[in-house]
Formats: sequence, structure tokens, C-alpha cells
Amino acid sequence: MKPEVDYSLYLCTDRDLMTTETIEESVELAIKGGVTVVQLREKNCTSREFYEVAIAVKCITDAYEVPLIINDRIDIALAVKADGVHLGQKDIPVQAARDLLGQDKIVGATANTVESAVAAWKSGADYLGVGDVFGTTTKNDTKPVTVEELKEIRQRVQIPVVAIGGIKQSNVHLLKPAGIDGIAVISAIIGQKDVRGAAEAMLSSFREA
Amino acid sequence: MKPEVDYSLYLCTDRDLMTTETIEESVELAIKGGVTVVQLREKNCTSREFYEVAIAVKCITDAYEVPLIINDRIDIALAVKADGVHLGQKDIPVQAARDLLGQDKIVGATANTVESAVAAWKSGADYLGVGDVFGTTTKNDTKPVTVEELKEIRQRVQIPVVAIGGIKQSNVHLLKPAGIDGIAVISAIIGQKDVRGAAEAMLSSFREA
Repeated sequence: MKPEVDYSLYLCTDRDLMTTETIEESVELAIKGGVTVVQLREKNCTSREFYEVAIAVKCITDAYEVPLIINDRIDIALAVKADGVHLGQKDIPVQAARDLLGQDKIVGATANTVESAVAAWKSGADYLGVGDVFGTTTKNDTKPVTVEELKEIRQRVQIPVVAIGGIKQSNVHLLKPAGIDGIAVISAIIGQKDVRGAAEAMLSSFREA
Repeated sequence: MKPEVDYSLYLCTDRDLMTTETIEESVELAIKGGVTVVQLREKNCTSREFYEVAIAVKCITDAYEVPLIINDRIDIALAVKADGVHLGQKDIPVQAARDLLGQDKIVGATANTVESAVAAWKSGADYLGVGDVFGTTTKNDTKPVTVEELKEIRQRVQIPVVAIGGIKQSNVHLLKPAGIDGIAVISAIIGQKDVRGAAEAMLSSFREA
């Protein structure tokens, strides 16, 4: 059965930004700080390395009963029995991923406009990652999404919406009017010296907002 | 059921070396020239592009009833219903791939020593790509495999062995003593102006050898 996911604080990993030795350490600290879902994202390693780090991270997420989502690679998600995948607009289409993963796995999709959000929802996505909301340090090929657009997306789709892109403790409150289900964070958690403290602070800020 | 494959002339694609506009054109010409199995190999494109070109190439290979093998990406192979995958030593392990693909799909593996060949066979590979035999223009991280080693591999494993790496019409005959099942070719087919003619010549040279 598809797991019930609390999308409040959605961590995306990034090897290049992390302050710990290993991704597993960053993930464990972030989960201790309150991260509710983890997406493992690897863009510059071999399939074998991705597979191996996915197995290692899965041990951590399993121990804390936090869902693990794999970015892009459906085969890695299947091989390590992750909870699902997250698909960008340059990845395999949502419908094709659903055919491979079935109804028990989570398929998340990226959207950066109201139209693409509605399209991804209609193709069967389980949740949306919408952004870039504030400009981001990790991607620069996406057009900013305004809080008004985020709100419209939230109203038009019947799946959880997670905002992504440059979200920090100082700007989380700006997202409040959109009524979103969670925030996706990379550098504001994984790039901090105190990963656990950063996650705690982000979660409080989101819940207060 | 797993298809019976004639490995005699195994084409690996390479976008950067091809002389036609599209990969589909190269593949079709090569098949007309006698290629017996096609491996689609994409290293520098998005998953969406790989998926789309795999669908396009699958139309060609299906039309000519030639098996299509996908390099590395098990998810792309599953999504386009290819006949199998080819896994390098930096890809997902053979056993993990077999678990995802089942017994009806082909899982090929790269080996460059007698030990790695025997290990890949024991892990359940359906065939081996062994090389680099003559030095190659498309990879430079592999150690040359001698004809004697190729022969020893051929004798020690009970699956087809395909030699790869720098194979040209002028050197195919040197592989004769190894008793291999086929030759894998990239530039000597796909990098030629007359792709079909090159494939015809390579197949004759291999069959005569």
C-alpha cells in the first residue's frame, strides 16, 4: 500500500552542498531535526554509486520510518525498494513511471506553472514539487513561481504541493498565503553546519507560518 | 520468453560518432547491413531524451525483428519494453538487474579479465561484452584483453561472448582463435559514411574469420 506521507519538511540531498562526510550522516541529522520525507538526488555519479548510496540512505530512512524518494532513476528506486520517485520535466514521463512502479509507490513531479502542475496531477502524480519559488542555489533553469501561482496550483490540484527553491528560515512565512503542504529544502538544511538544528528551525518556521 | 539472440554483429550506438542525422537512421542502415543485435548507449542526455530515442529506435528494431538492448538504464529498458540491458562495471549489479527484469529479459555484462567474466557469468549474466580487445576510440578506462584471455573466457563461461574495442574489418581475423560468438562494433559501423556497407563488410569478415 502506498505510504501516507507527511510532506511538511521535504529534504533533497546534494553531495556538493553537504557539510558532513557522507550523505547518510546528513540525512540522519536532518531526520533527527524533523525532516518528514527524503529525496535522494544524484546527478554526477555512476549508476553503481547511486545504487550503493541509495542502499545506505535507505537503512537510515527505514530506521526512522521516513519515506525515501529517489530522484529520476526508477530502476534505482525499484532496486532498493524506495517508497517512490521524483520526476523532473526532463525525466521519464509520469505515466510511464506509474506503469513501472504501480499504485503502491509514490510518483512525484516537478511543475513550474499552473498548467504543468495540473497536467502532472492529471497524469497521475501523487504530489508536486513546485518552484523555483525564491530563486535557488542548486538549479538555474527554472522560472520563478509566485506565491499567487503557488496558491492557484494548490487550489487546482487534489494532491499535496511542496514548494521548492531558495526556501530559508527567513522567507518561509511568505509562503503562508499559498496554503501548501510542505517545503522542500536543500542548502538551508544540508548546507548548514548544524544540520539537525537547521531542520528543527525550518520545521518550526513552516508549522508556525 | 527470453529471445534467442544471434550475437554475431552487435552494434553499440554513439551519438557523437554517427554520420547520420538521427540514431534511428544509423540503426536502420546498420540492420540492413546485417547487424544482429543493437545496444542503445546514451551517456550525455536527459532521461527523457534517452526514453524518447529508445522508443524511436525500438520501432526500427521491432520492424526488423532485431533485439534491442539498453545500456545501463534498466528503467528505460522496462519502459520501452526492450529485450534487455547491458551493464558495465559501474552500473547496477547484474543480480539486482535480474531481480528487476526477471528471466525473460537479457542481462549482459562487461568483463575485462577472466575473473570478472566468470564472476559476471555466475551472477547470472546472459552474455558478456569482453574488451577492450584492440584499443578503442570510445572508452579509455579499460585494460586491453588479449586473444588468449578472450579464448580462456570463452572456454570458462557457458554464455555467449562478444568481443569489443577497436574492432575493424582489418583486425577481425585476429580474433578467430578465440572462438567468440560475436563482435561488438561502434565506430567501424556507425562512424562510417556508408553505414550499411560497413555493417555488411564487418559481418562477412566475422563469418569468414
